Amino acid sequence: MQGAPVACITLFLAAIMLTAPCHAQSSQGSDPDEARIQDVITASHILTNEGILDSFGHISTRSAKNPDHFFMPRAMPPALVSRADIVEVSLDCKPVSPDAPRLNGERYIHCEVYKARNDVQSVIHTHDLAVIPFSIAGIPLKPVLAQAGFLPPETPLFEVREANASEKKRGMLVLNTILGDALAKKLGANPVILMRGHGDTVVGGSVREATVRTIYTHIDAQAQSAAMALSPKITVLDNAELETNAAENFDADRPWQNYKQRLPAGQ
Amino acid sequence: MQGAPVACITLFLAAIMLTAPCHAQSSQGSDPDEARIQDVITASHILTNEGILDSFGHISTRSAKNPDHFFMPRAMPPALVSRADIVEVSLDCKPVSPDAPRLNGERYIHCEVYKARNDVQSVIHTHDLAVIPFSIAGIPLKPVLAQAGFLPPETPLFEVREANASEKKRGMLVLNTILGDALAKKLGANPVILMRGHGDTVVGGSVREATVRTIYTHIDAQAQSAAMALSPKITVLDNAELETNAAENFDADRPWQNYKQRLPAGQ
Amino acid sequence: MQGAPVACITLFLAAIMLTAPCHAQSSQGSDPDEARIQDVITASHILTNEGILDSFGHISTRSAKNPDHFFMPRAMPPALVSRADIVEVSLDCKPVSPDAPRLNGERYIHCEVYKARNDVQSVIHTHDLAVIPFSIAGIPLKPVLAQAGFLPPETPLFEVREANASEKKRGMLVLNTILGDALAKKLGANPVILMRGHGDTVVGGSVREATVRTIYTHIDAQAQSAAMALSPKITVLDNAELETNAAENFDADRPWQNYKQRLPAGQ
Amino acid sequence: MQGAPVACITLFLAAIMLTAPCHAQSSQGSDPDEARIQDVITASHILTNEGILDSFGHISTRSAKNPDHFFMPRAMPPALVSRADIVEVSLDCKPVSPDAPRLNGERYIHCEVYKARNDVQSVIHTHDLAVIPFSIAGIPLKPVLAQAGFLPPETPLFEVREANASEKKRGMLVLNTILGDALAKKLGANPVILMRGHGDTVVGGSVREATVRTIYTHIDAQAQSAAMALSPKITVLDNAELETNAAENFDADRPWQNYKQRLPAGQ
Repeated sequence: MQGAPVACITLFLAAIMLTAPCHAQSSQGSDPDEARIQDVITASHILTNEGILDSFGHISTRSAKNPDHFFMPRAMPPALVSRADIVEVSLDCKPVSPDAPRLNGERYIHCEVYKARNDVQSVIHTHDLAVIPFSIAGIPLKPVLAQAGFLPPETPLFEVREANASEKKRGMLVLNTILGDALAKKLGANPVILMRGHGDTVVGGSVREATVRTIYTHIDAQAQSAAMALSPKITVLDNAELETNAAENFDADRPWQNYKQRLPAGQ
Repeated sequence: MQGAPVACITLFLAAIMLTAPCHAQSSQGSDPDEARIQDVITASHILTNEGILDSFGHISTRSAKNPDHFFMPRAMPPALVSRADIVEVSLDCKPVSPDAPRLNGERYIHCEVYKARNDVQSVIHTHDLAVIPFSIAGIPLKPVLAQAGFLPPETPLFEVREANASEKKRGMLVLNTILGDALAKKLGANPVILMRGHGDTVVGGSVREATVRTIYTHIDAQAQSAAMALSPKITVLDNAELETNAAENFDADRPWQNYKQRLPAGQ
Repeated sequence: MQGAPVACITLFLAAIMLTAPCHAQSSQGSDPDEARIQDVITASHILTNEGILDSFGHISTRSAKNPDHFFMPRAMPPALVSRADIVEVSLDCKPVSPDAPRLNGERYIHCEVYKARNDVQSVIHTHDLAVIPFSIAGIPLKPVLAQAGFLPPETPLFEVREANASEKKRGMLVLNTILGDALAKKLGANPVILMRGHGDTVVGGSVREATVRTIYTHIDAQAQSAAMALSPKITVLDNAELETNAAENFDADRPWQNYKQRLPAGQ
Repeated sequence: MQGAPVACITLFLAAIMLTAPCHAQSSQGSDPDEARIQDVITASHILTNEGILDSFGHISTRSAKNPDHFFMPRAMPPALVSRADIVEVSLDCKPVSPDAPRLNGERYIHCEVYKARNDVQSVIHTHDLAVIPFSIAGIPLKPVLAQAGFLPPETPLFEVREANASEKKRGMLVLNTILGDALAKKLGANPVILMRGHGDTVVGGSVREATVRTIYTHIDAQAQSAAMALSPKITVLDNAELETNAAENFDADRPWQNYKQRLPAGQ
């Protein structure tokens, strides 16, 4: 009989611990940026798990509370991003907090795209091996898949040499405002821009949309490469299909849930 | 002291719940549709695990009890399909139950194929990346593997533009009876049809047969792509081989058991 | 003090259980076929784990005690092969025991190769997707890797139509003595033969040697395919290199240990 | 009753053994070679996990205490390398200890490169399947990726026939001083050399730098192969980009941490 009170207390404590995350989550409801930040963390893990992000690359979200700020992880491998690694940055590309950890050198991609595009709520930069061949072979990436209807007839290409011809040291990375601004201009109103020998930058109205666009850009590139190996002449989505496709197709939530459940336990 | 009887009751209820699936399974013997539904669930997991289904795509089985009905999962990633997600649908593409969850927009693929093909007991729609290149490069998929003898000399291709030329909004997806009927007509008596820039649809006399056909269509496409990269001139199965192959080869149970055992524990 | 005898008995029983496998293994020493059979089981799992065997394909070993017998698994996916599945077969391709389970229809590959080749102690038949493209594109597989020096300048190709032209039903599988004999004749003194649209058959002086040869045939095929995609003109191993390579290179034990340790726990 | 003290002593000894590695690690601080050796072990596991090392290939580090010595694992699959497997070798390619286990036959790669290159602190030899096609197709590997700026405009190729033309038995492996010296001469001041039909050798100022260079050589080769499949004319990094890239880009620690965290638990 003496075991019963002990058993009850144990069950009670277990119940508290199991519901603790729920308590935490319900307090997120008061901070619209917290859900966006959680998505940045999840997206970093999803895109790593899908082989699109490796040691480099980064995902950010605009702040819902302050559109002149955005959140991105400190400089680190995306696979390891956790809540403590998220830094609030202003559009002048400086961290809001003076104690912030070191940021990615290529944060200018994010800053300049957010400045140029009021519609954009999330920016993703990858070194996706599926798109790099298009960027260096001079072959335009085209929408060939039903799920890639968000792509324009030809995805723009950022050739960094066009932007840094006057620089003394001409590199490959977008490490300052001038290069970030040139990238944003070349991106224009598009959802994706390829970066020669480097990867791509993808934007969206939410982290989830940008993430799913990143994955379908990847799959579309794989499909186009494989098709062109069979024949140089391929059928791509025409204008009517591109126009209808957006209404027909892009619910980012179903793929997001699918890629999230593919994550190893604990991520 | 009164906690002990409460704890006992809780443990008893938990034991009932844990053994409930066993009770359910032993009652399947009396419902011929239950085994078919279990195969739909397993096939959804198998084709996801083999990289053929991703966030989209769906598998269905005709009802054994009522050939004018079929069962398919609600609109959701195939990897997550469980018993509670299965919906009974009639051939008019409406769910039998008024409380049914949301169905896949492309259920018309299943409805129209079941209407057109009395022999078909299972329909599978995928976005298989191995077949899409053939569908957009205008290269016919041909049987090159000993295990692909169920394929016709050239697998038919559904070009959706031939079916929706008159529609105001021309999309890529099979979202209504007209498009589903056009697909079924193009499929004819074949086991597989490619869908341009979209994927394929595979049919069979059982879920297991359709699943194994889906996998060998996938492998055959990989083999043909790789062979054509070596030489444009390849040897394909001739008519005699295709005729003999069915008798020689297609026991779906051995591959089914193999792909099932490859599933992660718990699926 | 009463806990001590209980603890001792527990430790004693645990020690017995932990050493039980050792007892079993030490009794293998008296049966030279048992080690060979264990290698057949391990090889089945290795080649499945390396993606070379799928639902089909099989590995056998000649009996050390009776060279007119060999051991192979019953008809089943190689991934699932265990000791209870091993069947002793005579070179007339009939199981030695009347109660034997069903054998693979293509056991004639093994029977006829063992008859034709006294040196061969192990035969492996796979549906390796890496070699099938060569078999249907009419491009000879050549030794391009330092570890593939066991391959001849051009690996022979078995075109089943040359052997079954007179058969009423011409299929793709080696299901009888005539076809097995034709395959063995085409194999000649070589270590590997490709089988058009089907896969390959690899032989060796032991299960370990045959297994490692199977894997390096696979990697060599991958390397040659990728090289020919860059340029039609490739450098292959010349005669002097092929001659030296055997002495320089083929210790099957190191790769065997490597592929064995890659197996998931429990296999 | 006497079992209790024996059990206690056993538990005490077990506790000592389990904490022994901790004792060992805390004493590493005084031995500058111990950290380098740990990196050799980690790098062996990283490169195996990334599919670049298989049953063969090896990693070494020069001794910090004695630059005429280096450390490499005994002849074994890299996946299994542990502390007990590390052997100290002198630049005459003989093990320092007379009781040393058997070394890799190709240790001459390491000895001769360390002799020729005072700057090199780590040597890695792989059978990387991504680079072998370039080595046999006569297509030079070029830097196409932003992260591959450490590569020269064309990576040198070691054609072993140019070094062993006079040998009676001409093989593929670097099994003596003459061949190792020829390789080192061909490597010159470069970070990487391809080895025809064999793989590559990569050097660096540390194990971490050499490891990350090995991985980016691999990815660069994949990108160049895929790009050339789209078009023979590709954009490569120009001289200004190569010059800037070193300063802009090569912090080996971030990729090292990323690849290390990708290792399965326990490695």
